[in-house]
Amino acid sequence: MVAVSGVRPPHPTDLRLLNLSLDPEGGHGRFELIWGLGRHDGALYGGTGIAVSVAAMEAATGREALWVTTQFAATAHLGSVIDVETQVLASGRAISQLLVTARHAGRTLFVSVGSTATPRPDGLDGQFETMPVVTAPEDSMPIVLGPTWMKDVGGLGANIEYRVARRPDAGAPAPTAAQVEATGQQVPMTLWARLTEGRPSTRAGIAFLADMIPPAIARAAGMLGGGPSLDNSLRFGRVGPDVTWVLLELWGHMAYGAHAHGAARVWSPDGDLLAVGSQTANMVHIVPMGDAGSGFDRLADPGPPAGSR
Amino acid sequence: MVAVSGVRPPHPTDLRLLNLSLDPEGGHGRFELIWGLGRHDGALYGGTGIAVSVAAMEAATGREALWVTTQFAATAHLGSVIDVETQVLASGRAISQLLVTARHAGRTLFVSVGSTATPRPDGLDGQFETMPVVTAPEDSMPIVLGPTWMKDVGGLGANIEYRVARRPDAGAPAPTAAQVEATGQQVPMTLWARLTEGRPSTRAGIAFLADMIPPAIARAAGMLGGGPSLDNSLRFGRVGPDVTWVLLELWGHMAYGAHAHGAARVWSPDGDLLAVGSQTANMVHIVPMGDAGSGFDRLADPGPPAGSR
Repeated sequence: MVAVSGVRPPHPTDLRLLNLSLDPEGGHGRFELIWGLGRHDGALYGGTGIAVSVAAMEAATGREALWVTTQFAATAHLGSVIDVETQVLASGRAISQLLVTARHAGRTLFVSVGSTATPRPDGLDGQFETMPVVTAPEDSMPIVLGPTWMKDVGGLGANIEYRVARRPDAGAPAPTAAQVEATGQQVPMTLWARLTEGRPSTRAGIAFLADMIPPAIARAAGMLGGGPSLDNSLRFGRVGPDVTWVLLELWGHMAYGAHAHGAARVWSPDGDLLAVGSQTANMVHIVPMGDAGSGFDRLADPGPPAGSR
Repeated sequence: MVAVSGVRPPHPTDLRLLNLSLDPEGGHGRFELIWGLGRHDGALYGGTGIAVSVAAMEAATGREALWVTTQFAATAHLGSVIDVETQVLASGRAISQLLVTARHAGRTLFVSVGSTATPRPDGLDGQFETMPVVTAPEDSMPIVLGPTWMKDVGGLGANIEYRVARRPDAGAPAPTAAQVEATGQQVPMTLWARLTEGRPSTRAGIAFLADMIPPAIARAAGMLGGGPSLDNSLRFGRVGPDVTWVLLELWGHMAYGAHAHGAARVWSPDGDLLAVGSQTANMVHIVPMGDAGSGFDRLADPGPPAGSR
């Protein structure tokens, strides 16, 4: 049996977070890139782009987002007004297929493909993976992500709170490159994340929080840093109305000529798998980790604007 | 250091496999959906759609595909001539961002977003996961995928060969639902796959072979069967020119109201991680596995055409 969340999208909290206005038909919308939606350098934050796409798809169909892939083609900066067009490519009894295009000043900033869906009451229901055992949010250390030497021009820190989720057996610093190489066993990067001001982690909220794979790829390689992501892909399970903290479990797959891939699982504190994700990134801003276990606050350096890559 | 494969795309073997003609500028192309490119019921095979997208992106840029997500919005049947349009959204020193749209009879059949890239000579290089230990292709049992009661109208069997890769400790049938539930440990579905006639597993070839996540989701739930995939997403590492057999390592994540997500890793026989992937599927054609270990040949029933969902 499917437990339906009972709230028909779009969610007002999503629209307020994203400063997003949508026309009643749902096909067109816009948002001004205000403080709180930008990266440390003031450029469009990737999580904003995929969250806007989720909210726009849900608004156009009245259905919950099932999966979305957002491709980042160009960037914009604080103060830009960005147009969002949502096309319904197909719509059936339970599933809609959508294409979202965001433009500014005659350029395409990002394109998203994806589906929204109505769960089928007697459809397959289940979870085939288990959450890693980590410290609870209240027992985890708050951190400020991003380069410590840079002012947070974009204001993300006002909207997102992160804490380092540690495994009970992981009091020591993250493994060095040599240790990873010696054991062949990668330890995922685990972070608790939530929106500030008690706002719920809806599907769009999760998309806003989960744009964190590049630093995990660096860590898997024994490095610190990251680089601009080329895209972000998320696939959602059931997301209830009362989720706030989510656990981001982040893995690196492989890298080839600076271009690298990684994956994410997003868990509720009760161990429900809310979403899975994957990203490709251009890992051009990394430094050797050495033994610097204290460098965690540098793990999420987003690097320069995507347009300069 | 990056080892470059040295072959500039598009690959002639890809174009022949996919019956694909592209104009010299690369922006437009077409293919007739011939026997060998369709599912058992004669509808467009999803792997054909993503492989055509990979080949079109590579041809338009002369660069190797880095990642691609293909969304399936409608279907077509054997004999249809399908137009393929490739737009370059952005192109930089090392990375191009692309959008591919395939149309037939005034309808959009599939839309693909993705990137092609030139590896950066001194960029990050590495692999952070290891291949499961399985029987070699020559020691693995050939199988014919798809429902045994249905004639292979689409002809995929003429282009693809599969063998069941078994773990040395897995002489027994696949675990039942009760066993999976009892241990909480999922065993991935592992298949060796290659193109027939000794054709190389290029990136497009891998895309053609790897559209196999839905049956693995069913298996993770203790079921047999699958359902039409809504999309297919692949991210590529280095793929050398001499790959033929690839190992598909297939996992289910979760299902909610019949809509389910899963993941794939694609390995060379030497243990190189060639690609990772993910898919969402509509799991409407599944039956309980029970103890029927012999039902493996039914694992890949593709179900009715995507358009009827």
